[in-house]
Amino acid sequence: MIDLYTWSTPNGRKVSIALEEFGLEYRAHPVNILQGEQFAPAFLKISPNNKIPAIVDASTGRAMMESGAILLYLAQTHGRFLGDDEWETLQWLMLQMGGVGPMLGQAHHFLRFNPGKAPYAEERYGTEAKRLYRVLDARLANQECLSGAYSIADMATWPWIARYEWQGIDWKDYPNLKRWYLAIADRPAVQRGYHVPVQVDPIPRP
Amino acid sequence: MIDLYTWSTPNGRKVSIALEEFGLEYRAHPVNILQGEQFAPAFLKISPNNKIPAIVDASTGRAMMESGAILLYLAQTHGRFLGDDEWETLQWLMLQMGGVGPMLGQAHHFLRFNPGKAPYAEERYGTEAKRLYRVLDARLANQECLSGAYSIADMATWPWIARYEWQGIDWKDYPNLKRWYLAIADRPAVQRGYHVPVQVDPIPRP
Repeated sequence: MIDLYTWSTPNGRKVSIALEEFGLEYRAHPVNILQGEQFAPAFLKISPNNKIPAIVDASTGRAMMESGAILLYLAQTHGRFLGDDEWETLQWLMLQMGGVGPMLGQAHHFLRFNPGKAPYAEERYGTEAKRLYRVLDARLANQECLSGAYSIADMATWPWIARYEWQGIDWKDYPNLKRWYLAIADRPAVQRGYHVPVQVDPIPRP
Repeated sequence: MIDLYTWSTPNGRKVSIALEEFGLEYRAHPVNILQGEQFAPAFLKISPNNKIPAIVDASTGRAMMESGAILLYLAQTHGRFLGDDEWETLQWLMLQMGGVGPMLGQAHHFLRFNPGKAPYAEERYGTEAKRLYRVLDARLANQECLSGAYSIADMATWPWIARYEWQGIDWKDYPNLKRWYLAIADRPAVQRGYHVPVQVDPIPRP
């Protein structure tokens, strides 16, 4: 049994989707980041950077923070969802962790939540979002998923793309990414994991 | 023999320092990102996100992008520098990839290279830099390095802290991080890797 501490964000959904895909038993505990629950001392003990998601594996007592670490831990300990080549998968997982997530997160901050406060930054992150979409689209021109077969690299990236409405994206420019996005949106485990820890609006479909 | 494609940046230094620490034979190929060399078609074949560093392992032909992926590949294939606990190390490596690197990188962009263009963003990333320093300092209060023994998590984080002069940091607030920073700065492999692919000013010392 895994205890999952999470909220309805792209990083949170990476792990709830993964737990559904791996078919692992888990309990979801909401950490309402809009009410500052990520700063509670009990949560900081398992996630000292005050970020969701985090897990505690009740069978071993191990606590883990950082969505990318949790995904790789699940994949390597269970030997599943590592794509066609484990090291290719790792590269695209890291590109998500270091690029797709942080940069689209900044786009959300400036374009969605703080428009008008820094036009220079809005331009910067809007442009970077489009550049990242082009990189992903080119990657998917010749293969089904980011690392061949469906893997943790896709589970990490998909929830960020599912926020495309906040990123100023015109889908006609990214046909391969759109095909990939819609195929993953149809997966039952993704549909279940998307609504953890609370039911929200349906997955958007371009 | 490993071919390393890199430039004198924190992400580049992670890998040149690691190759020195692992004692692996390598050739450094400068990719001058100030002259756009990261967009050359030959480089994009091994690094489709147009970022340094990237490596090609001549013995296997494997190409790898993303500094975090390269560090983990080296550590897991050689069974070295994984700290006291491999999964703890992975969490702090991911915190560097998803937080320390991207956020300090934004601080550099706004505070160092584009002051005055977006005061709101300068405030945002200056504050986040201090928050991350506090998280790292607290982690190092009770142990030598980020994951017990010196590991790839430290090799990933240290080169970003070595740019503290660009981040508006007052060292008196972070005594544990300062002790860690200076101890790693004294390592011969770090001193060699710091000056790859070109000799630069000495490592700064607070």
